[in-house]
Amino acid sequence: MKFVDTSYEPGKDDLKVVFRIEPGHGTIFKEAASKIAKESSVGTWTTTDTINERAEKIKARVYELNDPYAKIAYPKELFELNNIPQIMSSIAGNIFGMKSVKNLRLVDLGMPEKILKEYKGPRYGIEGVREMLEVESRPLMGTIVKPKLGLDQKEHAKVAEKSWIGGCDIVKDDENLTSQPFNKFEDRLTETLESRDRAEDETGEKKVYMCNVTAPFNEMMERAEEIKKQGGRYMMIDVVTVGFSALQEMRDEGPELVIHAHRAMHGAITRKKEHGITMQALGQLYRLIGVDQLHIGTGVGKMEGEKNDIKWIKENISKKEVTEYDTTMEDMKKRLKQNWHQIKPVFPVSSGGLHPGIIHEIMDFLGKDLIIQAGGGVHGHPDGSKAGAKAMRQAIDAKMNKENPWKYSEEKEELKKALELWGTKPN
Amino acid sequence: MKFVDTSYEPGKDDLKVVFRIEPGHGTIFKEAASKIAKESSVGTWTTTDTINERAEKIKARVYELNDPYAKIAYPKELFELNNIPQIMSSIAGNIFGMKSVKNLRLVDLGMPEKILKEYKGPRYGIEGVREMLEVESRPLMGTIVKPKLGLDQKEHAKVAEKSWIGGCDIVKDDENLTSQPFNKFEDRLTETLESRDRAEDETGEKKVYMCNVTAPFNEMMERAEEIKKQGGRYMMIDVVTVGFSALQEMRDEGPELVIHAHRAMHGAITRKKEHGITMQALGQLYRLIGVDQLHIGTGVGKMEGEKNDIKWIKENISKKEVTEYDTTMEDMKKRLKQNWHQIKPVFPVSSGGLHPGIIHEIMDFLGKDLIIQAGGGVHGHPDGSKAGAKAMRQAIDAKMNKENPWKYSEEKEELKKALELWGTKPN
Repeated sequence: MKFVDTSYEPGKDDLKVVFRIEPGHGTIFKEAASKIAKESSVGTWTTTDTINERAEKIKARVYELNDPYAKIAYPKELFELNNIPQIMSSIAGNIFGMKSVKNLRLVDLGMPEKILKEYKGPRYGIEGVREMLEVESRPLMGTIVKPKLGLDQKEHAKVAEKSWIGGCDIVKDDENLTSQPFNKFEDRLTETLESRDRAEDETGEKKVYMCNVTAPFNEMMERAEEIKKQGGRYMMIDVVTVGFSALQEMRDEGPELVIHAHRAMHGAITRKKEHGITMQALGQLYRLIGVDQLHIGTGVGKMEGEKNDIKWIKENISKKEVTEYDTTMEDMKKRLKQNWHQIKPVFPVSSGGLHPGIIHEIMDFLGKDLIIQAGGGVHGHPDGSKAGAKAMRQAIDAKMNKENPWKYSEEKEELKKALELWGTKPN
Repeated sequence: MKFVDTSYEPGKDDLKVVFRIEPGHGTIFKEAASKIAKESSVGTWTTTDTINERAEKIKARVYELNDPYAKIAYPKELFELNNIPQIMSSIAGNIFGMKSVKNLRLVDLGMPEKILKEYKGPRYGIEGVREMLEVESRPLMGTIVKPKLGLDQKEHAKVAEKSWIGGCDIVKDDENLTSQPFNKFEDRLTETLESRDRAEDETGEKKVYMCNVTAPFNEMMERAEEIKKQGGRYMMIDVVTVGFSALQEMRDEGPELVIHAHRAMHGAITRKKEHGITMQALGQLYRLIGVDQLHIGTGVGKMEGEKNDIKWIKENISKKEVTEYDTTMEDMKKRLKQNWHQIKPVFPVSSGGLHPGIIHEIMDFLGKDLIIQAGGGVHGHPDGSKAGAKAMRQAIDAKMNKENPWKYSEEKEELKKALELWGTKPN
C-alpha cells in the first residue's frame, strides 16, 4: 500500500494536516512522512492477510513534501467526526512514538466543512461576550486574584471587589484554585458573586467572575450548574489538564455560560519548536469544540518568530477565514487555509507578566479584540488592587484615545505611579 | 518570599516532585528552580498587597538541588486532593511556558499516603485480571485487529475469532477505531462478543475483548454501560486524548469493567529527554486514578537508557514499594521512593512491532507479569491470523518451559514459519 502521492488533490471533505518531520536514524524524510500517514490511518508494520479494499480507499495520503514539512490528507471516513479524542488518537497518536522520526510536530490543521458542521463552536464568541459585558470596542480588562493560593473566600471576594470597582471587567480565579480546604468552591462562588453585584451597583458597569470549575467530570458539571444557579455568567476550565472528552461534554451539555479556557500545561506539548503540537493546532480544536475565550500569550519580550506564532494563533481562533499571511514564503509552507463557516470567533486572551506600562505595546501588537489580564500588574500597584485596576484601565483608555501613556498619566495618578514603578515607554 | 530551602525536610503529607531544569537565558539553575516552586504554588511575578500568612505557609519549597535536577515539596493544602486536573494545573501548569526555563521536565512524583487515600486505584490490577482470565503465571497474549481501520464489524469479529481460537487471550481494538460509519460501535461490540463466546466454547479458555470506548464523556459512559450490558468484561480508553477529567469519572462512576489504558499521543508529551513529562510520572497518575492495564513500550531495539526508563515505569506501576534501583547514582538523583499502600498494581502492556521471534527477549527483559500484544506479528503470519496467534502462544510456552524457541519450533509448525519469516535468535 502506498502512502505518498504528491499528485493527489485533497478532497473537499479531507482533513489536512501539516507535520514538521525530522526523520529518525537511517530513515529518509519521504519514508518518514509515508510511515506517519500509514500509522495515523490504517497501517501496521507488516503485510497482513486482513488488509482489504476499504483500507486502501480510506488510507491517509502524503500529498505535499517540502522538507521538513509534509502535508497529509485524511479522508473523513477515518474519523468519528464529532469525537476529538478519536481524531487526536489518529492524527496525533502513536506517530509521536515512532522510531522512524526523531522529532515530529503537528503544526496546523485544515478542517473541512464536514467536520465543522459536527461542532457547535463558541456559544458567545467575541460578539456575544462584548454584548454581555456591554463593551463595544476596547479590549476587555481582567485580573487574576493573587496570591494564586492562600486567600480564603472572603479575602478572595474582597480583592475581587476592589479590582472590579477599580475598573476591571473581569475577575478570574487562578488555574490551580478550584476547591481547597481553605477556600471551598461554593463559598468562594457565593461571596465573589455578591462582590460582583456590589461592584456593578457601584460602577454601573457589567462585571463578570470567571470561576474555575476544573475537576473530574461530574464534579465539574455540578460546579458549572451551581454557577448558573447563583447567577454567574462564566465558567473557567483548565482545558489541557481537563482533557478533550470532558471539555466537549461541558460545551455540549453544560449550562449556558461563557467558557473561559485556561491552557495550563500546554507548554509541555507546545513549547519545543521541533516536537509536539503547536498552540495553533490546539487553538483550532478548542475553537471547534467551542470555548469562548482562550489564552494565547502576550508576545511581550518574545522574538520575532514567536510573535508571528502568536499572531497566527490569534488569527486562526478569531478570524472567519484564514487565507492570507503577511509572512515569508518559508512560513507559508506550513500553513493551511481555513474557512470557519458558521463557527464563531474565540476571544483571545493575553495574560502573564502584564502591567499598565506594556498595554500600549500589547495593543499595537494584538489590537483591540483582546482580553488583557494582569495579576501582579494590578495587585502589585503601590496603592493596592483598586488603584492597580484603575491604572490598567487608564492605560487602555490612553491607547484607545491614541495618546502617549506617559502624557496621559500626567493627570492620572494611578497610571503615573504604575508607570513609575514598572516603566516602559512606548517607542 | 523564599522558595529555596535545602534544609527543609519534606513533611509526610507533602507531594514531592523531581524536575529536570535547563534555565533560560540569563537565569541560573537555582533561580529557575525557585521560580518553578513559586509559579507552581502561590506565586506571581511582583510583590502584591494581597500576600498573606497562609500563602507563606503553603508555598512550595525546593529542598534539593542537584543540577540539572531539583526536588520540590508541595504541602497538601495546595491541592484539591482528589482532582488530578487541579494537581496537574499546579505542578505541570504555567511553569512549562516560563521564560526562566529553556527546558523543563517533570520527571517523577513521590505521592504521600494522604493523596493515595483519595483514589481507588485499579479495580482489578494484575491479580484480578489473572483471576478473570484464569491464567496463573504466564504473560497474557493479545492481538490488535488489523488493518487499524477498514474492516466492518463482521470482518472485525471474524479476525477476532480466529485470533482467540489460535490462542490469544485478548483481542483489542486499535486506538483510532471507535465508531466509524463502516464499523459502528454497537454493531462491532455485539458481533465481536458473539465471536468471543464461540471462541470460549471451542477452546475452553477465557477470552476477553477490549473494546475502545474513547469519546466525549457521556457517549463514552454509554458505550461502557453497553459493554457491561452485553456481557463484556473490558473497556479500552485512550487515556491521553480523553484526558484526566473524564478518565477519573469513568473509573469512579463507570460500570465494573477492567480498564485497558492505551496511551496514544503520550509521545507528544513524554518523548523529549529534556522537556515535557515522563511516561513514568503519567503512569503513576494513571495507576492512582485506577486503570488496570497500561502500555509501557517494549524495549526492543531501544538503547540502554531507554530500556532503564521502561523498567522504571514498569516497577512504578506494578510494584507495591519502589525503593531500590539497580542503577547508577546518576539515575538515583532523579528518583523518589514511592509506597503504593492500598493501591493495586497495574498490568504492564508491551505492544508495537512485536512478533514470535522477539518474545524470548521481551520476557527476559520484562518478565512474566506482562501483557504481550502483537498486531502485524499475528495477522502477518504466512498462514494467517489463527496460525499467527498459535505461533505467538507457542513462543510464550517455549520461554515458560525455558526452551530455545528455535528448538521448540521444530515440532511447532506455526512458530517455525513465524521464526523463519521474522527471525531473531535469542543469544
